[in-house]
Amino acid sequence: MATPKNHEKARAARAEKTRAKIAKLGVETLRQVKRADNPAMEIPIRALSNVAFSEKHQLIELGDKVQSREFFNVNMAKKFMQTFLVAGACKDLLESGKTTSIRDLFYMTKHTIKGHRENTFDDQVESDPIIEDLEVGLDALREELHLFAAKRGSMVGPMVIVDAGDEIDLSRMGSGGWSIPSITEDYVIEFKKHEAEYILLVEKEAVWHRLNEDKFWKKHKCMLVTGNGQATRGVRRLMQRMANELKVPVYVLVDNDPWGLYIYSVVKQGSISLAYESMRMAVPKARFLGLRTRDFKRFKLSDDVKIELEPKDVTRAKEMLAYPWFGAAHWQEEISDLLEAGFKMEIEALSNKDISFVTDVYIPEKIAKRDWLV
Amino acid sequence: MATPKNHEKARAARAEKTRAKIAKLGVETLRQVKRADNPAMEIPIRALSNVAFSEKHQLIELGDKVQSREFFNVNMAKKFMQTFLVAGACKDLLESGKTTSIRDLFYMTKHTIKGHRENTFDDQVESDPIIEDLEVGLDALREELHLFAAKRGSMVGPMVIVDAGDEIDLSRMGSGGWSIPSITEDYVIEFKKHEAEYILLVEKEAVWHRLNEDKFWKKHKCMLVTGNGQATRGVRRLMQRMANELKVPVYVLVDNDPWGLYIYSVVKQGSISLAYESMRMAVPKARFLGLRTRDFKRFKLSDDVKIELEPKDVTRAKEMLAYPWFGAAHWQEEISDLLEAGFKMEIEALSNKDISFVTDVYIPEKIAKRDWLV
Repeated sequence: MATPKNHEKARAARAEKTRAKIAKLGVETLRQVKRADNPAMEIPIRALSNVAFSEKHQLIELGDKVQSREFFNVNMAKKFMQTFLVAGACKDLLESGKTTSIRDLFYMTKHTIKGHRENTFDDQVESDPIIEDLEVGLDALREELHLFAAKRGSMVGPMVIVDAGDEIDLSRMGSGGWSIPSITEDYVIEFKKHEAEYILLVEKEAVWHRLNEDKFWKKHKCMLVTGNGQATRGVRRLMQRMANELKVPVYVLVDNDPWGLYIYSVVKQGSISLAYESMRMAVPKARFLGLRTRDFKRFKLSDDVKIELEPKDVTRAKEMLAYPWFGAAHWQEEISDLLEAGFKMEIEALSNKDISFVTDVYIPEKIAKRDWLV
Repeated sequence: MATPKNHEKARAARAEKTRAKIAKLGVETLRQVKRADNPAMEIPIRALSNVAFSEKHQLIELGDKVQSREFFNVNMAKKFMQTFLVAGACKDLLESGKTTSIRDLFYMTKHTIKGHRENTFDDQVESDPIIEDLEVGLDALREELHLFAAKRGSMVGPMVIVDAGDEIDLSRMGSGGWSIPSITEDYVIEFKKHEAEYILLVEKEAVWHRLNEDKFWKKHKCMLVTGNGQATRGVRRLMQRMANELKVPVYVLVDNDPWGLYIYSVVKQGSISLAYESMRMAVPKARFLGLRTRDFKRFKLSDDVKIELEPKDVTRAKEMLAYPWFGAAHWQEEISDLLEAGFKMEIEALSNKDISFVTDVYIPEKIAKRDWLV
């Protein structure tokens, strides 16, 4: 059993590994200074021009174009300073064993430069990209740099985890569930034992509540997760870790609209803006469980649940038709179906039939009949 | 110890009480029909004209003006029908022991009226006010009608609760915490035993994380709660229940800005729009722990953390000066201080001194010196 002591050990070991990466960057840069070179560090470019969909990995990946960030360059000197300032703050965090938010980091590193009226950072929009630079430059997720983004989402199911040293039985979490933390790396969360046969990620918290109240996860032996909308980094990382470590499939249940498709696609292969993290967060085999346009006829839904597509839905859906990761015939058909039908539907639409229709009929039938898309 | 069986019993008893209220409304209306009267029900008016701040209760309360909703009135007939439709759906929920979202309820009650092309509801903006009408008309919170709003927020601390029959030790919840459910009525959540000396509600999730990681709640024996911004109904109801049942004070830690003051004031005496629920959700004795404008000097904060007030902040703060619940001299001074200083601050500003300054200095000092506002 993991004890707080073991937990501290795992956490310290991981922190040391990341700290060493930062220290190495510092030592190398100092060496350049001593050699009277122009101090510089290489940072992979995080622009659309360096992002591509890898057919092999089924992921949105960063290419290998890099930029040299140099100290003796008027356009780069400030960013160079900022990069080391953030790296230094992360090193402090790692050494103290503490984690913090990216907002906090901004405050930690914001100050007036001695003898000048210039601020190190004026706004968080300056420090956030520097964090991303460090993530790709050091090949360390921000969670490994002891930084976190927003926390959102809940989980219940037949699994015992150890979270920061506390053993938690996720099958006894009442109506609220376990609140998924921002950092779900293995140095914080350990999967101790489980009986889950699959993982069900639902977009909407209300649907999660319905399934939890109906004890769906107990009957069907699954982990029940909600991201309350778009899945956070913590939820995505947790999904990938569970898929790999528990070796069970992940099903994603979203609304029948372009936003639902987008939520699914980010879980599946990552996003363009955070392409560098896809390797550590995406679940390429995630199964799309719907809602689908054809479900309207299949489940004999009433016209009452149709919501007319808005112009922005149409634009978004058309953009999706062009994405290489939706290039397969079945996805082209799916998105075209939505556009042709001219209406979208929310998962809650199923309640128009019966409040527990989603629990008793929709999900079990879809899974039993292998009616999903990948 | 509460067992799932006891839980079911408590839940069923409460459901029956609410169901009886709906049934009574139905029976009375039927009697009117049989007498060939104009069927009507009385609904307290939920408009600003019927809302006032009660000095005695220190709450924003609904007055006693009522409106008669009549069936034989072209302006009211549709609303009359909708009211009974929603009441009927809630009765079904109560009888089945299930709870659902207000979005779901919209789908459950939306249909085309037989023989007409007219919908019972066209949009959720029509069904939501009907729910509020029923809440005030029946004197039953929506949670008692088995309806819930959004879920948000987490809690940890030295307390054992029973949530939907599951016993949960909130002192062993790891980094994530217990996810506060939408319905925190006593038929769902029972406080079993605790060692809490106070409750600390923090606006920001990142600050909650900092305090949890530092195990602040363990050292200071308090319940640590975040509402992730504005507290949800579930969080507010939980605050009131804990304040009353555990008989411990509630401290509220928010940003130093008009929005922070507003979050505090809603926890304290309710909001204008939901005045009818203040009695069941507000915590009139809640203590405002800051951040305050004077804290800038007191804690020797650096200019780096100042954020200039925007015009909308100034407008909002001036509005607050006029609210009767901020009429006391100390509140007038507090809000004037903010306006005169011309800057606002986030709680994260304290990290500019040290990452654990909020844990080690700010909160303990403020509480020890009784430096709070009520």
